[in-house]
Amino acid sequence: MNTMVLDLVDKHQETLKAAIQALHKRSFFAHYPENPSPEIYGENADKEAREKFKSSLNQRFEELQQEGPHDWVGQEESPYEQQRLGVSYPYFEPETLIQRAEEAFHVWRKIKPDMRAALLMESLDRLRDRFFEIAYATMHTTGQAFLMAFQASGPHAADRALEAVAAGYEELTRFPEEMEWEKPMGKYNLRLQKSWVAVPKGISLVIACSTFPTWNTVPGMYASLVTGNPVIVKPHPKAVLPIAIVVAELQKVLSENGLPPAICQLAVDAEKHLITKELAEHRKVKLIDYTGSSSFGNYLEKLPGKITFTEKAGINSVILDSVDDLDKVMQNLAFSVSLYSGQMCTAPQNFFVPEAGVKVGEEMVPYEEVVKKLADAVAGLVNNPKAAPHVLGAIQNTATLERVKEGKGKVILSTCDFSNPMFANARTCSPVIYEADAADKASYSQEMFGPIILVIKTKDTAHSMELAQEMAQEHGAISCGAYTTDPAIKEQIKEAMSLAGTPVSFNLTGGIYLNQHAGFSDFHVTGGNPAGNASFTNPEFVIKRFTWVGFREPVV
Amino acid sequence: MNTMVLDLVDKHQETLKAAIQALHKRSFFAHYPENPSPEIYGENADKEAREKFKSSLNQRFEELQQEGPHDWVGQEESPYEQQRLGVSYPYFEPETLIQRAEEAFHVWRKIKPDMRAALLMESLDRLRDRFFEIAYATMHTTGQAFLMAFQASGPHAADRALEAVAAGYEELTRFPEEMEWEKPMGKYNLRLQKSWVAVPKGISLVIACSTFPTWNTVPGMYASLVTGNPVIVKPHPKAVLPIAIVVAELQKVLSENGLPPAICQLAVDAEKHLITKELAEHRKVKLIDYTGSSSFGNYLEKLPGKITFTEKAGINSVILDSVDDLDKVMQNLAFSVSLYSGQMCTAPQNFFVPEAGVKVGEEMVPYEEVVKKLADAVAGLVNNPKAAPHVLGAIQNTATLERVKEGKGKVILSTCDFSNPMFANARTCSPVIYEADAADKASYSQEMFGPIILVIKTKDTAHSMELAQEMAQEHGAISCGAYTTDPAIKEQIKEAMSLAGTPVSFNLTGGIYLNQHAGFSDFHVTGGNPAGNASFTNPEFVIKRFTWVGFREPVV
Repeated sequence: MNTMVLDLVDKHQETLKAAIQALHKRSFFAHYPENPSPEIYGENADKEAREKFKSSLNQRFEELQQEGPHDWVGQEESPYEQQRLGVSYPYFEPETLIQRAEEAFHVWRKIKPDMRAALLMESLDRLRDRFFEIAYATMHTTGQAFLMAFQASGPHAADRALEAVAAGYEELTRFPEEMEWEKPMGKYNLRLQKSWVAVPKGISLVIACSTFPTWNTVPGMYASLVTGNPVIVKPHPKAVLPIAIVVAELQKVLSENGLPPAICQLAVDAEKHLITKELAEHRKVKLIDYTGSSSFGNYLEKLPGKITFTEKAGINSVILDSVDDLDKVMQNLAFSVSLYSGQMCTAPQNFFVPEAGVKVGEEMVPYEEVVKKLADAVAGLVNNPKAAPHVLGAIQNTATLERVKEGKGKVILSTCDFSNPMFANARTCSPVIYEADAADKASYSQEMFGPIILVIKTKDTAHSMELAQEMAQEHGAISCGAYTTDPAIKEQIKEAMSLAGTPVSFNLTGGIYLNQHAGFSDFHVTGGNPAGNASFTNPEFVIKRFTWVGFREPVV
Repeated sequence: MNTMVLDLVDKHQETLKAAIQALHKRSFFAHYPENPSPEIYGENADKEAREKFKSSLNQRFEELQQEGPHDWVGQEESPYEQQRLGVSYPYFEPETLIQRAEEAFHVWRKIKPDMRAALLMESLDRLRDRFFEIAYATMHTTGQAFLMAFQASGPHAADRALEAVAAGYEELTRFPEEMEWEKPMGKYNLRLQKSWVAVPKGISLVIACSTFPTWNTVPGMYASLVTGNPVIVKPHPKAVLPIAIVVAELQKVLSENGLPPAICQLAVDAEKHLITKELAEHRKVKLIDYTGSSSFGNYLEKLPGKITFTEKAGINSVILDSVDDLDKVMQNLAFSVSLYSGQMCTAPQNFFVPEAGVKVGEEMVPYEEVVKKLADAVAGLVNNPKAAPHVLGAIQNTATLERVKEGKGKVILSTCDFSNPMFANARTCSPVIYEADAADKASYSQEMFGPIILVIKTKDTAHSMELAQEMAQEHGAISCGAYTTDPAIKEQIKEAMSLAGTPVSFNLTGGIYLNQHAGFSDFHVTGGNPAGNASFTNPEFVIKRFTWVGFREPVV
């Protein structure tokens, strides 16, 4: 094996170095181009992938190197077509998966960090050739529009995975493998030969979600792998195909290089046998990565003897104080709430607006007008047939649709019909805006996943900050948008939200949105509030996946 | 404040740099000399400290800057005199301590990392002048002999604290405070000004033990402090004075520099009101460091919403396979088990000896003879009046004495009388050796704290390794000693014990012992088995004490 792998180490060395450097600088870095243009990805890449995706429907997914399935299962459904994809995947009993992972563990942990990194980076390069295919698979499981599906599930996810590999590699090589320790004792020196190994924790379970099946999955998966842990990927039953392709490509690289593909396995639920709890509770599973609901996340976090990385629900706030150009601000926010119909963990929900209104330049724009401008901006986007389908996409599941329809409070914007010219049967709905009473905290203190905006009238900006902080501290938050032209207020917001562990985007207008977190620069869910501790990718995300063990003996 | 603190930053800069470098190299590094010689610490240091210690008995400890105590309490007793010290300490209700810590938090977290590091390092330098006094306080609370009390509670503890400060400072300054992020978008570049802050978690509770009241306490205390968290130190009620001096010196440095001394408070139990649980369960306590029993440690680890660093019980093994000089090996091991009468978390307990005996050079020395040599070496040390009192010290508490007397199994060495010429009333006992049956795992699968050795006859070295690994994996281990001249067996032992997260010292003879873990080089309790995850000092030990939070806004 080693000669081939050494070639891979050479091949990826420069990129690994650049990635580690970017992690430290936190400057812009992207290894995989986010522009799905033919010049970059090839003239026929899109067309071929579309055809390949179509031909995969109603077939078995045969790419995985996992032998002897107990069954073939599948329950995915396209939010664009509202009909089943019909793709089926091999099903294995949890005990079989664990046993195979355990065997693979004792091979994988012995592979040196530089080789593990190279093998994993090679798998990401292979993935690059399948970004378009993954994009269509993502569209038709999550409901994302094409461009987001391409970017989030393809290049952005691959960059996040690369980031995890780079961070893991750095930590694994942070201390010397061995050294001579010499302690002066006066008349003589004590000399010990010392060495250290980074021992992986064991089997890693990565539990994926239905809305970002690769972006939220590959960081934990690659972080566990680079640190020597075998991984079992448990996809959401409604969003398997995108991550199945990722696992299959990795398995190919592993087996080409003489390694057991069981180093990373796909573990699909049978329709009548959901296996997540059985896997998570298994005594051999030591690491758990999870994206999803707070209730299940809290259950996982309480399992004894596991190290968990979670991304759960968050209530993201927007604090409106003072702006230069209110229309630009509202356009930016309307886009943020509409992007993938609010089905992002970073989408804003609670908009805090002072009762005296928002200062625009030297003028105060009254509360009612601010709210109206927000509603108009959203309606304008929704009613723009050239933009809307590409921004809003479709609704991943019917529960979200129900939630949008059932929302309570004074309705500010109720429109919920919106058609997609390309997919007549798409499950869609446009954002709704409700007004919540600041005094009725229960009405805005939980995440309402989907395109639901709550406007909360506050006494003043101090009150807005206080509520935004409280929501984040008590119920979790993953992002925050704030608009102020007053440097003192900006500092107060930083202060309030930093204590709530919530990153803040200030005064965004134009082509950048508070719900976008960039790899190598923006930390994501760093553990400062109940929304979770996924923490990709800061050092904590990789360090907790292995144990330092030292050996020493006298120098002879 | 700042001018004075800036002077401190200058003063300690070089040491901080050297400490960070040593952490990375893991080479020998000691900032505080371990030799209690008059040339280093001053002609009268010892004498003055002894007098100061004596004069502090039966007095109130008035050095703390904690006003308005509810009571004065104290229950320490000297294991050398078996009578009460009579020192009393101010007692505060938990809610008072929490409230003061909370106020101090909002001052301390705003102090820059370089200033925090400098203030903390200054406090360690002040401590240097009190090492002898701390040594006597340690002797007469823990029962350690003078030299260990001096080294472990003084220079070694201060070096461990310095190590935590250095590791914390490095992590806090690992990423840029701010930077301009520029993303090429084709026709234009998106430009964001980004900044990051390391937000401390909140109030930190450090729960100390009765045997190493400073060595096991200052790492967590200084790690929390350097990362911006206020600390409440809850000493063991029987070992307060050594750490009270540490807290008092730190409080002096803080208040001299215009900072609230409540940044670090001492929280002593009242005799009828033990406050540990109340403090640990308080919702404002976010970090817990703990050294002590497994049962209480497991309770702490299960508290929701806390980050815990624990050092609990471990069963440390010695694996005997083959040696060059059996007498030298036995002398080394006899010292290891006798040092502070086995009351170290790193002391070995289970000695695995193959039934065919141990290979010495080309010869097999039978099992019985190996065991006899061990017993003889221990007896030899115990019966050497020049060495024994200085090695064995005294027994910290009567429960340990009871345990030694009650031990079950076939007695190999039972002698339990041993007198200290300097302290006629000292609570002492010499090590006992029992033989346990390998098949009766229950008889050797728990820590028997104190000078208790179990010899376990195994089928062969493979069997020894298997049992040592199982004990560590299932019940925890903090150290391991192994003796083999066979490189293949050495690799197997490394393999077995690395999977059990246990560091191994091979073939130690002469003046270095398996129970000594050196700051800046040997990681201590890194979290790979049930003995805990204290992990001083690897990056995990400091990273988990703060949260990264990012801010960004368009470049104007």
